Amino acid sequence: MISNTPKAPYYAVIFSSTLMDEIEGYDDMAKKIDQELESQEGFLGAETARDGIGITVSYWKDVNSILKWRDNELHQLAQREGRLKWYKAFKLRIAKVERDYGFVREE
Amino acid sequence: MISNTPKAPYYAVIFSSTLMDEIEGYDDMAKKIDQELESQEGFLGAETARDGIGITVSYWKDVNSILKWRDNELHQLAQREGRLKWYKAFKLRIAKVERDYGFVREE
Repeated sequence: MISNTPKAPYYAVIFSSTLMDEIEGYDDMAKKIDQELESQEGFLGAETARDGIGITVSYWKDVNSILKWRDNELHQLAQREGRLKWYKAFKLRIAKVERDYGFVREE
Repeated sequence: MISNTPKAPYYAVIFSSTLMDEIEGYDDMAKKIDQELESQEGFLGAETARDGIGITVSYWKDVNSILKWRDNELHQLAQREGRLKWYKAFKLRIAKVERDYGFVREE
């Protein structure tokens, strides 16, 4: 579940959001978007959690990959629907990961 | 709940983690850490969500502020306890936010 990203540098898109009470169609679209993401050039993985606030961080090889994903047809539809119906508020941040480290417990 | 960060550039620390089944003391420490964070130089805000994976993104003025926080005494204690008892795995990423934009629904 924690993305197995390559050696830095790479990019992160941090998408933080709050949802409306009624979010018809949101879960279906989220599933489609997750599938579509997998085939995107430069996509390195994504992590997502929601309790109250939702945070999705997707990881990308470079800014160009992020811009291509922004313009993806299905993603464009999702963005329109999101503004029309699903999101109370969101903030999207594009960030260059400069360093990282991890920990995995020994069994 | 979505952090009201200043104009980019600034920094994000993306901390993704999975927890052990038994996490005695974790919630207390998390509360203390949240309080301690508020008074840190260069701290700009934090967003956190957990369902399965936990994602906490804290925002900082610059790398120097992040390094000071890394060395904070209470935070050092939390890091030791986390490795000893609470985390199954984690990944920490330090990233420079280059651009951002937001959306807030009109009432």
